[in-house]
Amino acid sequence: MKTIIKNGQFLLRENDELIVSTANLIIENNMITSIVKSSDDFNDLFSEESLIEKVNVIDGRNKLYMPGLINAHTHTPMSLLRGYADDVSLREWFEHIWPIEAKLDGDAIKWASLLSIVEMIQSGTTCFLDMYDHMEQIAECVDLAGMRTCLCRGVIDFCSKQELDAKLQEVRALTVNWHGKAEGRISTMIAPHSLTTVTSETLNRLVRIADEFSLPIHTHFAEVTADVAEIKHKYKLSPTRYLLQHGVLNRKCLLAHAVHIDEDDINILSEHDVSIAHNPSSNLKLGSGMAPIPEFLEKNINVAFGTDSSASNNRLDVFTEMRATSLLYKGFKHDPELFPATQVIDMATINGARALFLEDVGELRVGARADLIAVNIDQPHFYPHSNLISSLVYSASGADVVDVWVDGRQLMKNKELLTIDIDKTVHEFKRVYKRFF
Amino acid sequence: MKTIIKNGQFLLRENDELIVSTANLIIENNMITSIVKSSDDFNDLFSEESLIEKVNVIDGRNKLYMPGLINAHTHTPMSLLRGYADDVSLREWFEHIWPIEAKLDGDAIKWASLLSIVEMIQSGTTCFLDMYDHMEQIAECVDLAGMRTCLCRGVIDFCSKQELDAKLQEVRALTVNWHGKAEGRISTMIAPHSLTTVTSETLNRLVRIADEFSLPIHTHFAEVTADVAEIKHKYKLSPTRYLLQHGVLNRKCLLAHAVHIDEDDINILSEHDVSIAHNPSSNLKLGSGMAPIPEFLEKNINVAFGTDSSASNNRLDVFTEMRATSLLYKGFKHDPELFPATQVIDMATINGARALFLEDVGELRVGARADLIAVNIDQPHFYPHSNLISSLVYSASGADVVDVWVDGRQLMKNKELLTIDIDKTVHEFKRVYKRFF
Repeated sequence: MKTIIKNGQFLLRENDELIVSTANLIIENNMITSIVKSSDDFNDLFSEESLIEKVNVIDGRNKLYMPGLINAHTHTPMSLLRGYADDVSLREWFEHIWPIEAKLDGDAIKWASLLSIVEMIQSGTTCFLDMYDHMEQIAECVDLAGMRTCLCRGVIDFCSKQELDAKLQEVRALTVNWHGKAEGRISTMIAPHSLTTVTSETLNRLVRIADEFSLPIHTHFAEVTADVAEIKHKYKLSPTRYLLQHGVLNRKCLLAHAVHIDEDDINILSEHDVSIAHNPSSNLKLGSGMAPIPEFLEKNINVAFGTDSSASNNRLDVFTEMRATSLLYKGFKHDPELFPATQVIDMATINGARALFLEDVGELRVGARADLIAVNIDQPHFYPHSNLISSLVYSASGADVVDVWVDGRQLMKNKELLTIDIDKTVHEFKRVYKRFF
Repeated sequence: MKTIIKNGQFLLRENDELIVSTANLIIENNMITSIVKSSDDFNDLFSEESLIEKVNVIDGRNKLYMPGLINAHTHTPMSLLRGYADDVSLREWFEHIWPIEAKLDGDAIKWASLLSIVEMIQSGTTCFLDMYDHMEQIAECVDLAGMRTCLCRGVIDFCSKQELDAKLQEVRALTVNWHGKAEGRISTMIAPHSLTTVTSETLNRLVRIADEFSLPIHTHFAEVTADVAEIKHKYKLSPTRYLLQHGVLNRKCLLAHAVHIDEDDINILSEHDVSIAHNPSSNLKLGSGMAPIPEFLEKNINVAFGTDSSASNNRLDVFTEMRATSLLYKGFKHDPELFPATQVIDMATINGARALFLEDVGELRVGARADLIAVNIDQPHFYPHSNLISSLVYSASGADVVDVWVDGRQLMKNKELLTIDIDKTVHEFKRVYKRFF
């Protein structure tokens, strides 16, 4: 199957800079096989070929095509808890959230996750990292939905030895059953929930599993001051040095949040293969603060975006995180030149791919996987088309996305989902919600 | 003409608190004449009446109706400059923007303003304050579009005495020709552009015009540190005491920005009939900083939202400003209980009405003007419907608005504009844009 998108505006990289150019792009199977830039009218170029080969020809005019967005940290089943504990202290938030979470079963996880997957596709996300439990249910959803995903069975202690052993068994099973599956769209990481919710011993066990399967590690890290204080109090070490001590930083590593972190920590992280999943909306909404992203970037630490869950955001729209980041640091550092549009777009795309240790994802180039989205720029808030890169960050939102492809397969066409029955998903989500509330 | 909205979810005030309740609402002419709360199925209640009286009956299920949003500070013609000077220092921003602005004529102002009006209606704004020149053109657009507006002919010095006299003549003419016109939908204010862009003498002349017509005063105020420093250097006064000295605070007054302001200033403002138009996106994007909104509210100073222009935002979506404000101050004060959803909704609605000195606008109650919008809550990012007030702030965006009424007249129906030809507006906007770029 061949798809040709003609006369679109494409977000491409040229001499290491993002540019927008009129072009024609060809998708064959799961790959981008051709990008022909042209300012000519190519309306008739492929018409003969399309007649012969039954090529799918798409009129790209008035659309801006860009790499699909990558959400490097979320918890999809928590859609069930959206709005359940807003505008309350973090302690109260956990008091609300955790008892419900403890009760969720596979049926709940499945439909709640699928609702989040719908929301992500609709807002232009083509790849996400998920940390939760009942991950086999989520893997099946992802497989059918056609998304690209990195799945993490998050491990929390506070349970019996038997239960912990069962959790670690699920960690192994998830990797054995799903890593590299679904045409290679699914990968896994090993995920201690955070440094304060697993013991030192459990952390060691998880690092050994990561070693055994050669997998990266993902964990919540220095999200709130209490996390940092607890580690310092217990172990007389900063959270970063604690990671170092446990060999976590010997592996590829993706740390979510990293809000409360000092210069020594940043120096250590910069010497290892570490990426940060930056979750600005969630960090602000829960009152956690603002991660030192400019300082990470100065030390060449890779930073991607996460939405965190819809219980603390309350949306799963990576466009929101791009804009928030650019504006926040401009405002607080009193420097409007900070975080130009091109930089936050990279964070949402190519940096996201690096954070998930994915190759050939996160940019539109020949030989890359065909994970791309189309934004409808024929809307008042996009005019004039004087600076479309800027528009993607400051004017656009997920609601402007009209088409989505992952691995060469179209998942959304003119806002209609092609792989998921939304009505059934919402119906089942409501049924599940009623069971718990 | 009578419109009945049946079985919608309505954002109402009960015992001084915002609540969401299933209800039926009746609009007659330009007013809300009935709100009947009910959990019953009212599907057939009005059917007989509708047959007799040709009532327009609307099925409100799966929609959340709320007061139209109020944008208390913008410059609609600057849509022409959207994306023109992003990610640059404020000095460079002015260097880019001002030479183009100086050339704009009535034809440019008209179509650029209309594009902004379309964008605002589409994102749920029913009322806005505009400060620019060629205001007669904008008044005509507003009249035809059906919006509610407060128009300000912004006065900047840096011109000959003749030109200044002509500007002041336009200030008077705008009020004489348009204040109270368009079925009362248009009002005017007197607008020195800022304390640093008009001389002390011009400010005095404008205050006298405000006195003569009994009009409020609107101005840019303490937006950047340089503004404050200049006033302090020239007059040995804080900007607030400078306003006081010129009698500005003797009148009703709406100050845009108020970012760089101290405790003494806040105390003075709190003793006068002053509102603040808070523009968080613009203040962040230009690197100006963050206004002390919690401190204003503590002193009972009325705070509303502005988007500022699309050259510094780059959207005109008040939903964005609600969410930004709630999250920003939560994050930076490390207090997730700050700015709960109800408070920022008030800022975007009833406080906006107060800031523009409008009565019977900004809430859904019997006797109020029928300025209201419907949000489509049958979308994945609104589920579960556990806390719809929260959803309006943390999950919704302007793109979720489907219906808009102003003064009882429907301006948008299921996302289709009823008073403005979008295709023609975009066509003419492009024509005008080409003339200048």
